[in-house]
Amino acid sequence: MFTKLCRPVASISFRTVKCFCKPRQLNKYYNIIARANCSASSSFLCDKNVIFVAGLGDIGLDTSKELLKRDLKNLVILDRIDKPELVCELKELNPKTKVTFMPYDVTVPIAESKKLLKKIFDKLKCVDILINGAGILDDHKIEATIAVNYTGLVNTTTAIMDFWDIRKGGPGGILCNIGSVTGFNAITQVPVYSGSKAAVVNFTRSLAKLAHITGVTAYTVNPGITRTSLVAKFNSWLDVEPDVAELLLEHPTQSTKECAASFVKAIEKNKNGGLWFLDQGTLENIKWRKYWDPCI
Amino acid sequence: MFTKLCRPVASISFRTVKCFCKPRQLNKYYNIIARANCSASSSFLCDKNVIFVAGLGDIGLDTSKELLKRDLKNLVILDRIDKPELVCELKELNPKTKVTFMPYDVTVPIAESKKLLKKIFDKLKCVDILINGAGILDDHKIEATIAVNYTGLVNTTTAIMDFWDIRKGGPGGILCNIGSVTGFNAITQVPVYSGSKAAVVNFTRSLAKLAHITGVTAYTVNPGITRTSLVAKFNSWLDVEPDVAELLLEHPTQSTKECAASFVKAIEKNKNGGLWFLDQGTLENIKWRKYWDPCI
Repeated sequence: MFTKLCRPVASISFRTVKCFCKPRQLNKYYNIIARANCSASSSFLCDKNVIFVAGLGDIGLDTSKELLKRDLKNLVILDRIDKPELVCELKELNPKTKVTFMPYDVTVPIAESKKLLKKIFDKLKCVDILINGAGILDDHKIEATIAVNYTGLVNTTTAIMDFWDIRKGGPGGILCNIGSVTGFNAITQVPVYSGSKAAVVNFTRSLAKLAHITGVTAYTVNPGITRTSLVAKFNSWLDVEPDVAELLLEHPTQSTKECAASFVKAIEKNKNGGLWFLDQGTLENIKWRKYWDPCI
Repeated sequence: MFTKLCRPVASISFRTVKCFCKPRQLNKYYNIIARANCSASSSFLCDKNVIFVAGLGDIGLDTSKELLKRDLKNLVILDRIDKPELVCELKELNPKTKVTFMPYDVTVPIAESKKLLKKIFDKLKCVDILINGAGILDDHKIEATIAVNYTGLVNTTTAIMDFWDIRKGGPGGILCNIGSVTGFNAITQVPVYSGSKAAVVNFTRSLAKLAHITGVTAYTVNPGITRTSLVAKFNSWLDVEPDVAELLLEHPTQSTKECAASFVKAIEKNKNGGLWFLDQGTLENIKWRKYWDPCI
């Protein structure tokens, strides 16, 4: 049976499938093979089920459009505010992909996140990729910045582990967290925001190193200065620099379309532990410096 | 007058004082000179007013004891739980320093932090150094970890700016934030904690770069693995490694006394932007890698 199924699949040999073979896991192999078929014929993302938190945002929307060029099976967009006209636009882009919108605020208690995810998993059966993209940039709002940019991302991630963690019988998964270059080196004038993004970068690097335990791989995409409504005007901490947005935009930037193209390229590279730097239309995997080593 | 006052002060020349001289600032010069006198005779910390958030903690307590060897004027300890016997012990260590305890939970709204600080400033008139040391290590508690380790630190820092910011007529100040080596490179098994400390490191580096605007200098002290009750037993994220504490303590560590000695040395170095790595009894100023530059 496997021989027949495997025939058109270049990247999975009969030997590999045989090694994995246990009766209760047959469904998994159908999936693996279906995906591998897809991968051979078009892209890594073809036929995948993707949840995109903040998929209607500035970078989010153009990234959703870019994703839809890849023949996903499902794109589930979770966002705080429904924008029906944008969702309609997305739905019309590719008839092969089912686009769904569900309202979600990442600052809800983790139990709420789990409930929502359960609905999605019940419906789709499997989710391949979670993109965590909720973010705000306003250093007048300390609590909200940290709650959305860091706590919300950690909670959403922790919530999906109930469904993905191989220790709980889950199939594993792929986590794509949106960090920021400010997580590497801050925009000094927005220290609260920059700090929250440093947290995301550090957190996600850990998760990648835990993949052998959880089955969940992880990486960050870290956009450089991108011309979004977020960046057009924002408050600095204690107004240390009222013109921070204008000053920032005097230097080379990238469009949301350029950023989205790099974003999806990074997803397709699917590199566990990737620390993707998306700047001025380019994509680079940053090597983080080792300052010390906990040795465990 | 200045000639007379300045005579015993090695580090402030008549010329320097003259340069700064404006009538309304006379009080400040008395302070500068008093401190410089002190500095010449003993240490940088002599006669200083210091607020120490979490000054009764594991590292906190030994650091408080070490600070008290330096003839501070006032040591105001803010901690969540009063431990009268420890406060008494501290009070008896050095009669030259007035030790005060006030209850403080860093997770209160920022308005509460400002009220408490107002009481302290009203009483002491000036505060030279704020040490932000509140921290928890328990990756089962996502919200609490982030609220204490990052949001609480940001709020306490933001609150004291009302009194220190030179743009508001304040005298400036010195901010000493306790980060952690896990802010440089995570302990993978506690990604939530490590991320929160990365946020502290990134946040504080920004503050140091804003010192020319706010008058407030800032640095972090980042202890390596220190034998505290915090580290003796703690929860990993989703129990990815139930024995994380034991594993960590199998490698070289430092005592809280060693850490406290380095801690106070770092304070005495008083280096704006310092990124102090306190490991196994040593003290090193880390140079952070520049991954990108916002150019503003």
